[in-house]
Amino acid sequence: MKIRSVLSAAVLAVAATFASTQALAQDTYTLRLAETWGPNFPIFGDTTKRFAKLAEEMSDGRLRIRIDSSNKHKAPFGIFDMVKAGQYDMGHSASYYWKGKVPETLFFTSMPFGMTAVEQYAWFYEGDGMKLMQEVYGPHNLLSFPGGNTGVQMGGWFRKEIKSLDDLQGLKMRIPGFAGEVFAKVGVSPTNIPPGELYTALERNTIDAVEWVGPALDLRLGFQQIADYYYTGWHEPATELQFLINKDSWNKLPKDLQAILKTAMRVSAYDMLIQSQDANAKAWATIKEKYPNVQIKHFPDSVFKAMYKANNELLKEVAAKSDLAAKIIKSQEDYLKQTRAYTNISERAYLNTMAEVE
Amino acid sequence: MKIRSVLSAAVLAVAATFASTQALAQDTYTLRLAETWGPNFPIFGDTTKRFAKLAEEMSDGRLRIRIDSSNKHKAPFGIFDMVKAGQYDMGHSASYYWKGKVPETLFFTSMPFGMTAVEQYAWFYEGDGMKLMQEVYGPHNLLSFPGGNTGVQMGGWFRKEIKSLDDLQGLKMRIPGFAGEVFAKVGVSPTNIPPGELYTALERNTIDAVEWVGPALDLRLGFQQIADYYYTGWHEPATELQFLINKDSWNKLPKDLQAILKTAMRVSAYDMLIQSQDANAKAWATIKEKYPNVQIKHFPDSVFKAMYKANNELLKEVAAKSDLAAKIIKSQEDYLKQTRAYTNISERAYLNTMAEVE
Repeated sequence: MKIRSVLSAAVLAVAATFASTQALAQDTYTLRLAETWGPNFPIFGDTTKRFAKLAEEMSDGRLRIRIDSSNKHKAPFGIFDMVKAGQYDMGHSASYYWKGKVPETLFFTSMPFGMTAVEQYAWFYEGDGMKLMQEVYGPHNLLSFPGGNTGVQMGGWFRKEIKSLDDLQGLKMRIPGFAGEVFAKVGVSPTNIPPGELYTALERNTIDAVEWVGPALDLRLGFQQIADYYYTGWHEPATELQFLINKDSWNKLPKDLQAILKTAMRVSAYDMLIQSQDANAKAWATIKEKYPNVQIKHFPDSVFKAMYKANNELLKEVAAKSDLAAKIIKSQEDYLKQTRAYTNISERAYLNTMAEVE
Repeated sequence: MKIRSVLSAAVLAVAATFASTQALAQDTYTLRLAETWGPNFPIFGDTTKRFAKLAEEMSDGRLRIRIDSSNKHKAPFGIFDMVKAGQYDMGHSASYYWKGKVPETLFFTSMPFGMTAVEQYAWFYEGDGMKLMQEVYGPHNLLSFPGGNTGVQMGGWFRKEIKSLDDLQGLKMRIPGFAGEVFAKVGVSPTNIPPGELYTALERNTIDAVEWVGPALDLRLGFQQIADYYYTGWHEPATELQFLINKDSWNKLPKDLQAILKTAMRVSAYDMLIQSQDANAKAWATIKEKYPNVQIKHFPDSVFKAMYKANNELLKEVAAKSDLAAKIIKSQEDYLKQTRAYTNISERAYLNTMAEVE
């Protein structure tokens, strides 16, 4: 009896030492993530699922991400607040949704007449983008990271062709956010209508035009059945979604899991751009085949020039109200100018060459 | 005495059990990687360094990558063989270097008049690209992964302007690989000259023109000092480097380290595209400022059309010799056709709009 009890105590002590080292190495962290999107929302929702899977695989299960879609948390536009308050550890949304709350968040999604996806990632990762984004989010106890890019969003579905600025006067269009403000300045009446009601609103002429995303997501809503004119983009040339992390949740993670989390976000974001390109190309092929009524249109130069001027005026107003906004606008303008000069002699020149040759 | 020895044996047994679990979890794997590039080669070499750092951080040091540059292994174009033979676990190079050995490796870098970087990543990851690449590399006991993209490569530096096909006849140009064969078909004499001798060769008229990469890497070689005409690209619209892994080395890794390795490669490859965009834009700004002699030129339509035709003829010849090559060519052609139709209404339309508006 005595021997056994001494032995047990000693064994337990040794076991405890190893177990605690082991436990430290094997500690499991579950992060709760709230996303703006509903369950099974294509592409955007695939991005959070891919991110979660990758984080879990790379950490051998030590990092688990539990995703709640909007049907669960009921607050699609409450992500910022919920993650800030620590109700959720993470969020997946879009930075420009918070501009009413924190005006400087506007700049980290996509700006009218702004950078393309590759140019904007270069601004984030090789320019000042990431630094400026943390400067905006830091005071809210949040970290923000790029969360996936849609590529160039289309300019929207119109039931009548736009031949001049006159055709925009009083035109009722679903186009939210800053681009809506730009459109308002050139005579459009921007309205916001829940996605589920957009098709009927367009069909019944409650609105004359609707901007959504691009072929892959637009096709599902059926606009091609009731609108013939599909306009090329100008207002969101590279819409970047966003991962938000509560800083306390972040700080609790060991360094290797922080590295895994950060890399899983970064690669999932890039992957969404690639998935978007693939899905949009497939959907556009379907639209061309099944809806020969659909015509691609560009706005006339006079319209683009008026919108470009309106956009610059609005940016000046925003800059006048906030030094930080002014700093971000200048960083983006300078970066865009330099990077676009190169894009023009590389990607644009090549694509134009190919269009001539074929 | 007896009690102590029983106790020790029991403790040791328990300790051993924990230690072995612990050891398994903490096993360190060192992978030796040989790269084609010399030490401190910009961008390409940064990609392997970033990859190694990321793999190490995410694995908390369990995965270590030891990089040998070409000064060490002395075989810049022996990477395929060395990794196949297991002399190295990994390689960083470019797939088209192996076309003399395995003709079907040609297709996984960039093809003349082919896909752009985003389009090609979509083909790799959402289309059949990755599957076809493993079909080519599998029989050589190798896995191949995208290893970083340069973006659209420039068409090269010319000392005389090219105004027609006549100007290409007998023109001596450094342009290697398949693009060199295309150029040869329209009258150019392609030559290959070691990088270190290119500047002198161009200066002394040993060659009339030289193709290298893009502004960032070209600037270092100084061509802008002796050639005025910088042509836009057509021959390598999205040069993708390559990570190679010996399958036996891969199979020895636990699943979580495989996931870490794969993700570190994937994100480093994307990151190189972004770094290239940034570095090329900066270098192009420098060239414009300091070398006003440099003019951007496009080849005339007649030249592009002749090269396009020559390219298609050469592809037919390659396809006739190998069913697998024919299958890859068809996959790329079909994918390009669909994806470019979408690129034309999104990215290209947007870039052209911006060029008109500003």
